[in-house]
Amino acid sequence: ELFVLTYGALVAQLCKDYEKDEDVNTCLDRMGYGIGIRLIDDFLARSAVKKCRSYSETADMIAQVAFKMYLGVTPSVSCSSATGNEFSLILDKNPLVDFVEELPAERASLCYCNLLCGVIRGALEMVHLAAEVTFRQDRLKGDAVTEIGITFLRKAED
Amino acid sequence: ELFVLTYGALVAQLCKDYEKDEDVNTCLDRMGYGIGIRLIDDFLARSAVKKCRSYSETADMIAQVAFKMYLGVTPSVSCSSATGNEFSLILDKNPLVDFVEELPAERASLCYCNLLCGVIRGALEMVHLAAEVTFRQDRLKGDAVTEIGITFLRKAED
Repeated sequence: ELFVLTYGALVAQLCKDYEKDEDVNTCLDRMGYGIGIRLIDDFLARSAVKKCRSYSETADMIAQVAFKMYLGVTPSVSCSSATGNEFSLILDKNPLVDFVEELPAERASLCYCNLLCGVIRGALEMVHLAAEVTFRQDRLKGDAVTEIGITFLRKAED
Repeated sequence: ELFVLTYGALVAQLCKDYEKDEDVNTCLDRMGYGIGIRLIDDFLARSAVKKCRSYSETADMIAQVAFKMYLGVTPSVSCSSATGNEFSLILDKNPLVDFVEELPAERASLCYCNLLCGVIRGALEMVHLAAEVTFRQDRLKGDAVTEIGITFLRKAED
């Protein structure tokens, strides 16, 4: 909860700093990226996982090992494209928003948890996987679930 | 570690926003206060501790239960005044600075972890204890240990 509240303070500070939601979103994503490229070492050391051999394995690893380790929740994973490079992580419960009731009307485009996208993107890049990571649905915006989309951009260079 | 890195991103953002270290310190303390007044409910619910009957018990509770719960470390506590209202929490290891090597020269007055002081102050206020909470020593500034000073300002009401 200390983390969740501290994250809230970070988002609030960025909302003070930037008038446009898009700028806050970009900033959170960029910060997350910086975190992800450092967090990956901790993740590999603590999880002692083996190398993933497919995008599907990688997506499962993010959901079942990384989310569990750092956020205490396990999203469900589904593959959302025939080409096998697009995945959705579906969160029924998002611990990062425990203290957020709803977004204020003037912040309707804010991706409150956008830091997570950056973290995933940064961490994947460090294991030579380029990916786009974005929120596709967000309960804070009235969607039924929170959905993070991961699109792998090219074949892993092992 | 996700928390530690996210906290680092928050401090970095504030350093961008404010030129003076003192302003960053004040901002961290104020943010911490806002967190503390909300975190106390979580703490009381999860710890199920009984009411403290003295300042000394309160200081021990902060060190042994709250620090352990939220930061995974247990500072040692010493009473630093004859009047029995001043305490020191001594941290040999401060998890919040795991990724910080040293403060940049131009940020020599930064109290990197000042959020913690605000958290303690805010949480104490919600249980009707007014206190001043400040860093007295900081390993990031070359001190041998990190020391948080808590001075209780008046007798607990009831």
